[in-house]
Amino acid sequence: MTGVLAVTMGEPAGIGPDLLLALYAQRRERQLPAFAVFGHAGFLAARARRLGFDIAIQETDSAGAEAVYANRLPVIPIEGNVADRPGEPEAEAAPAVIAAIARAVEATLAGDCRAVVTAPIHKGALYHAGFRHPGHTEFLAELSAMGGPPKLPVMMLAHGDLRTVPLTIHVPLAQVPGLVSHELIVATLRVMAHDLRARFGIGVPRIAVAGLNPHAGEGGSIGREDIDIVAPAIAAAQAEGIDAIGPLPADTLFHRPHWRHYDAVLAMYHDQALIPIKTVAFDEGVNVTLGLPIVRTSPDHGTAFDLAGTGRASPASFAAAIAMAHRMTAERR
Amino acid sequence: MTGVLAVTMGEPAGIGPDLLLALYAQRRERQLPAFAVFGHAGFLAARARRLGFDIAIQETDSAGAEAVYANRLPVIPIEGNVADRPGEPEAEAAPAVIAAIARAVEATLAGDCRAVVTAPIHKGALYHAGFRHPGHTEFLAELSAMGGPPKLPVMMLAHGDLRTVPLTIHVPLAQVPGLVSHELIVATLRVMAHDLRARFGIGVPRIAVAGLNPHAGEGGSIGREDIDIVAPAIAAAQAEGIDAIGPLPADTLFHRPHWRHYDAVLAMYHDQALIPIKTVAFDEGVNVTLGLPIVRTSPDHGTAFDLAGTGRASPASFAAAIAMAHRMTAERR
Repeated sequence: MTGVLAVTMGEPAGIGPDLLLALYAQRRERQLPAFAVFGHAGFLAARARRLGFDIAIQETDSAGAEAVYANRLPVIPIEGNVADRPGEPEAEAAPAVIAAIARAVEATLAGDCRAVVTAPIHKGALYHAGFRHPGHTEFLAELSAMGGPPKLPVMMLAHGDLRTVPLTIHVPLAQVPGLVSHELIVATLRVMAHDLRARFGIGVPRIAVAGLNPHAGEGGSIGREDIDIVAPAIAAAQAEGIDAIGPLPADTLFHRPHWRHYDAVLAMYHDQALIPIKTVAFDEGVNVTLGLPIVRTSPDHGTAFDLAGTGRASPASFAAAIAMAHRMTAERR
Repeated sequence: MTGVLAVTMGEPAGIGPDLLLALYAQRRERQLPAFAVFGHAGFLAARARRLGFDIAIQETDSAGAEAVYANRLPVIPIEGNVADRPGEPEAEAAPAVIAAIARAVEATLAGDCRAVVTAPIHKGALYHAGFRHPGHTEFLAELSAMGGPPKLPVMMLAHGDLRTVPLTIHVPLAQVPGLVSHELIVATLRVMAHDLRARFGIGVPRIAVAGLNPHAGEGGSIGREDIDIVAPAIAAAQAEGIDAIGPLPADTLFHRPHWRHYDAVLAMYHDQALIPIKTVAFDEGVNVTLGLPIVRTSPDHGTAFDLAGTGRASPASFAAAIAMAHRMTAERR
């Protein structure tokens, strides 16, 4: 695979633009792979000046970006009304934010870019422009289906060799038990097993599945779902040759001596998957979307409006997201 | 407060006896405070021989235990039929296991011992002997109520300065949203604020409350409970002078730079409280029961039948439980 990584500008009022500019300024020390920003060039130049970065920006197309990267930040221009007002999200900018994502996905599907790395968005600001997805992940699944039925996008959080996937994501806890189904568990395990092999180069990925209930239900005395639903789904995946085991008690599973036996953990819900990563990862966790025809990563933080424009936000997670997108596609260059 | 710490023998087929014997053998290197074991002397002597420990055991009473401790392991004798068969729990031993707990609590309520440190039990083996409590914690609450209405026992997990309390404990996840009530949150915060002051010497404890839903409900778009129930309960506690804040998103809360601002975290359910502790604590977490008239700690692991009698189980958590019971009562000696 050739070409640059496609980085989206994200919410202009957030820290995404600050971080991608900071990373371009530090590209040599951090040995970052070439990337282009899909975004509004005038806005990015204004934010760079505000932060005191001496960065030359050049508008280009995906094909020309790699040659530009050494001396100027390549920007694939997205038109729109994007102001440099840190901390003040504006509906006016929403069409450009959305278009940046769509164009980055298009360029990657076409093979002009290697992978997509997305800066954080603010859904509230996008809803006014007609954005109806729960988040980036679902929007990317729709875009990359190219009009066909979307694949199942699977969100993975990664930090070093700890990788966790929440089976259910942004739903109220009360809905979680009803959403834990045989079909969803098997489908998610298939995506995980496939992508850990195809994208991470792990021959036969070992996947641990966390139980829904405390102590994985303790033999049925603390809820039946782990016996009635989770265990049979794991058995079905095993019958397909997937090396999955569980359900295992979630609390002891994230004790390092336990999870290090596994290449990834399938958790049943948001906090069960995210707490262990954020507990150990400080600010270096990466969000990876599995199940898509393209590679997509992102930092695992939000827009942090209070830090935007200050230069005080840490680019560690964003740098880790770029490095991971690079590793996931570099071996196939 | 004078006297020894009261350590219960726990399930004879598990690792509890192994660990308390190992800790007695290492009492000088580890600078452990004096403790007496409430248990079956013949069984403890047999297990010590099996493990190759050169430990002299002396039967005594609570008052005599401190003088014995330097050279012999003081055992407050509990009669019964207790065999040394690691890994094979037997219903026959159950009455002695239960009596050891009851006698340790009695001695501590009477002021003859300073605190209770419990070794793990196996509920399955105890049910046949009529034990009807979900666990140690509720049994201790009943015992220490001395016939009156039991206080609300509150389970806290601690490792260094990370302390977490699950509002609900050993219940199926599907029941959690229905159990998260105004009354339970306020009552639990009262116990936490009181005991963090009285038992841990923290003047005005700062308590963070985790949200029930992902991102603490994200302004109501991911469930209403955090707005309708958790937030008003926190406000009610604040009105009583309790320094509680929240609901905060549980995933970012356990990022160290966040939780270190707080003396303790009230989580809404088992895995939300236990995952962060077990993720960071390796095998040194301690379980503390708040809300009782006595101090009680325990290691945060189970009976580990597969390791019993082998000498390979780590005594780190048990040692931390003894050290914490000592600190929680020593300042008032």
